[in-house]
Amino acid sequence: MRAASVVLAFFAAAFSYAADPVPQWGRFELALPGPAGGNPFVDVSLGATFTHGAVTHDAPGFYDGEGVYRIRFMPEATGEWSYVTHSNRAELAGRTGAFTVTAPAAGHHGPVRVAHTFHFAYADGTPYAPFGTTCYAWIHQGDALEAETLRTLAASPFNKLRMCVFPKRYDWNHNEPALYPFAGTPPAHWDFAQFNPAFFQHLEQRVGQLGDLGIEADLILFHPYDKGHWGFDRMDAASDDRYLRYVLARLSAYANVWWSLANEYDFMREKTEADWDRFFQLIAANDPVGHLRSIHNGSRIYNHTQPWVTHASIQSGAAVLDSERAMLLRDVYRKPVVFDEVKYEGDLPRRWGNLAPEELVLRCWEGAIAGTYVGHGETYQHSQDDVLWWSKGGVLRGQSPARIGFLRQVLAAGPAAGLNPIDKWQDEHTAGVPGDYYLIYFGTAAPTRWPFALYKEGLQDGLAFRVDVIDTWAMTITPVPDRFVTRQRDDYLFEDAAKKSVALPGKPYLALRVQRL
Amino acid sequence: MRAASVVLAFFAAAFSYAADPVPQWGRFELALPGPAGGNPFVDVSLGATFTHGAVTHDAPGFYDGEGVYRIRFMPEATGEWSYVTHSNRAELAGRTGAFTVTAPAAGHHGPVRVAHTFHFAYADGTPYAPFGTTCYAWIHQGDALEAETLRTLAASPFNKLRMCVFPKRYDWNHNEPALYPFAGTPPAHWDFAQFNPAFFQHLEQRVGQLGDLGIEADLILFHPYDKGHWGFDRMDAASDDRYLRYVLARLSAYANVWWSLANEYDFMREKTEADWDRFFQLIAANDPVGHLRSIHNGSRIYNHTQPWVTHASIQSGAAVLDSERAMLLRDVYRKPVVFDEVKYEGDLPRRWGNLAPEELVLRCWEGAIAGTYVGHGETYQHSQDDVLWWSKGGVLRGQSPARIGFLRQVLAAGPAAGLNPIDKWQDEHTAGVPGDYYLIYFGTAAPTRWPFALYKEGLQDGLAFRVDVIDTWAMTITPVPDRFVTRQRDDYLFEDAAKKSVALPGKPYLALRVQRL
Repeated sequence: MRAASVVLAFFAAAFSYAADPVPQWGRFELALPGPAGGNPFVDVSLGATFTHGAVTHDAPGFYDGEGVYRIRFMPEATGEWSYVTHSNRAELAGRTGAFTVTAPAAGHHGPVRVAHTFHFAYADGTPYAPFGTTCYAWIHQGDALEAETLRTLAASPFNKLRMCVFPKRYDWNHNEPALYPFAGTPPAHWDFAQFNPAFFQHLEQRVGQLGDLGIEADLILFHPYDKGHWGFDRMDAASDDRYLRYVLARLSAYANVWWSLANEYDFMREKTEADWDRFFQLIAANDPVGHLRSIHNGSRIYNHTQPWVTHASIQSGAAVLDSERAMLLRDVYRKPVVFDEVKYEGDLPRRWGNLAPEELVLRCWEGAIAGTYVGHGETYQHSQDDVLWWSKGGVLRGQSPARIGFLRQVLAAGPAAGLNPIDKWQDEHTAGVPGDYYLIYFGTAAPTRWPFALYKEGLQDGLAFRVDVIDTWAMTITPVPDRFVTRQRDDYLFEDAAKKSVALPGKPYLALRVQRL
Repeated sequence: MRAASVVLAFFAAAFSYAADPVPQWGRFELALPGPAGGNPFVDVSLGATFTHGAVTHDAPGFYDGEGVYRIRFMPEATGEWSYVTHSNRAELAGRTGAFTVTAPAAGHHGPVRVAHTFHFAYADGTPYAPFGTTCYAWIHQGDALEAETLRTLAASPFNKLRMCVFPKRYDWNHNEPALYPFAGTPPAHWDFAQFNPAFFQHLEQRVGQLGDLGIEADLILFHPYDKGHWGFDRMDAASDDRYLRYVLARLSAYANVWWSLANEYDFMREKTEADWDRFFQLIAANDPVGHLRSIHNGSRIYNHTQPWVTHASIQSGAAVLDSERAMLLRDVYRKPVVFDEVKYEGDLPRRWGNLAPEELVLRCWEGAIAGTYVGHGETYQHSQDDVLWWSKGGVLRGQSPARIGFLRQVLAAGPAAGLNPIDKWQDEHTAGVPGDYYLIYFGTAAPTRWPFALYKEGLQDGLAFRVDVIDTWAMTITPVPDRFVTRQRDDYLFEDAAKKSVALPGKPYLALRVQRL
């Protein structure tokens, strides 16, 4: 993605400028010299209107320090685009130019959008199923560890990363960051009206590197793991809004950004529900790309039915222990549900941080069968330096990532439009596409036999199916030699015409895949 | 409640009239002669403004046939009230009068309101926990069966009844009613602009009789069990709204009314989601009492976070199989959750109508432990005449009502503000009040021992507790002779200082009640 970024050199006078081509969903960037005196972050307003035929988008600009102003824009359509800047400073206003948007860079599918009500797809229609993990403070750990985190991610099954903009202060994470978002003196003397461009340039570098790896950056804009140490959790409303506008101006043009308004938003006692509503509306109004928006809860779940929420981001250690629970949330929200925190594989002396790997993998499967998405996290204590993946990144030590990769492969080979419950509120073990594809997950049950039986929707007598036995822990897929042929059994179910069953190995964590021949 | 109704005799001229006293939450009724020609239901507008100090309420009036117009009003405060009528007909406008509102009638607590976010209480603060049942079409079965239904209800544990205004046509329920809501010819030739007062007088009689029994009438205003046979499910928007206004004018002054906009609203294909939103808003705007409002789903759950919904009315056979599922809905809605349909105790060849009594009682307990409320229903086929309690009323034949009565007693002896989860998302088996009262339900597990252990909130070392073993099926409460004294065990739990356990009989459907001494 960074290859898609085009930075225009300074130029002294307003004239129409034909820039280099920009790939679709790449990043156009205009750099303009401007006033460095006073407080440019507050004194100078800047933006540009981008036009492509009848389509126009307004993109906010920002001050990047040292007398340089930038306007970034992610074009969503190929062809000719033009722009004109606007500003309260004459030298930044009325600049015009044009550029050509070409086919997207190889492997670049655009930003992720909601698709088929409960699922996601890239802008070009390619299905996207989030397999997220969490390294809250990874960008505040210095180059060596941050590079290691990126290497680990590159070799992992994960395609979404939850990460905080602000540094984090919490158990196993008390180190100060190298960079701070505002001008001032650590830990707590800040001028919230003066941003530190170096901090945000570093953030952008990391977001761009995730994009290069095909990983969505689920950017957490606020969090409570500060408690006034730096005070980024208790800025006044004007500072909150200014911060959000600055992040939007800098990062909206990165295709792989998601806006997560907060982690454990309700644990930020200085903010009210109305503040979060305002933040959502501010972001929706000022992000020309319309990136995905959600907010992660502590013990009070945000009202994800609000129109400005694109998908529900849920913390619950319990909801994905049972796919029916997860399914109910989907029914309530009528939106994609992403369980971004379901406790962590690890060995912490905390009940949220000591899941056995089998328990986390079970949650991922239960969530998948519900037609929802479950995020990974890892909290093994393995050294003196408190480098836990969950907070700082580094290397993965758990046994769940490989199994999550296996689940990802199974889903990628399944229905493009995602899994949905087959017989909602009656059979919480089966998801798929009626008549075509069924994925049945047995959880901790250890069945030795499955009598072929499918819910009637999409079926008629005489349809042939093949079955695979999936061991979700051993990561094996074993085709059943038999073919199965449907015959109606009663008002609700079809069985095999010869009443055949599938033999199962009597272990936990088994699944079946049933596909129409 | 009917004793609280005061009907003023006709009078010929406008003058101030000092009526008989009305008890608080009773029913004031003004009857006025007026025009009988044309279509009084459409041609004549009528209402009155009722004033008590700085408080005013506008109550709609209605035409009751034979030249009689009525205005009903339920006063919520004791003391002096006055009123003045308004109408588009001079002879009905500007009538004034006054009346005194006295202390409520014995045992009358006023309409039910939401209390403590997730629970209910009568207007006078008396706790109300809904124990509902369902007789959808009971008022359309003729006097003999309707009287039998009332006798059954009087002897039952139920204090809420789901019932349809319109007649019902569905399996096991194809009989025509004695009365129809509109003028016209059955089955399908109606003038939706002309109501049949006798139909509504009968409805009011039944609602009043329920009130006398202390039973809330959860009035279902629309339902899909018509399919055009009468066409009450597919009236035009103006007729729908006129019908709602007429019902509101007639019934808002009955303290025991709840508005259930529909049963299985989403199965009414002729209506859109916007129609239901409009109905809610119309009702909220035209009901001077502000009765409880909700809507019951088929497979698509209404957005109960809408501000005009007072509590979530849910159909789900699965949500209360597991209290964690029910608890999640409470968290999402931040309102009381009433599971008004969870399948029925019965023997129908339908999967929604053949629960064993134990299965229904389990659902009631799981729901209670979640801090939610579960409704009863019964579908035993016991005769040639298709008199199933679920639809027509009659007598109860199941084994669950007695156990539901037992649960009601247990809850009535518990915390006045209702049960709430003690350790949300971690322990789905325990509800109560931290430090004071715990109700622990084991469902189908058959434990033989419970090591005394309570979540830390509200606890400290050295607190003494007594324990009762409850057999929810046998309906026994057995005190444990031991006393238990708390001592902190770890970051999360307190145990007994002597590590004592409670012996349990190893049967399903057990519960424990743990109370501070």
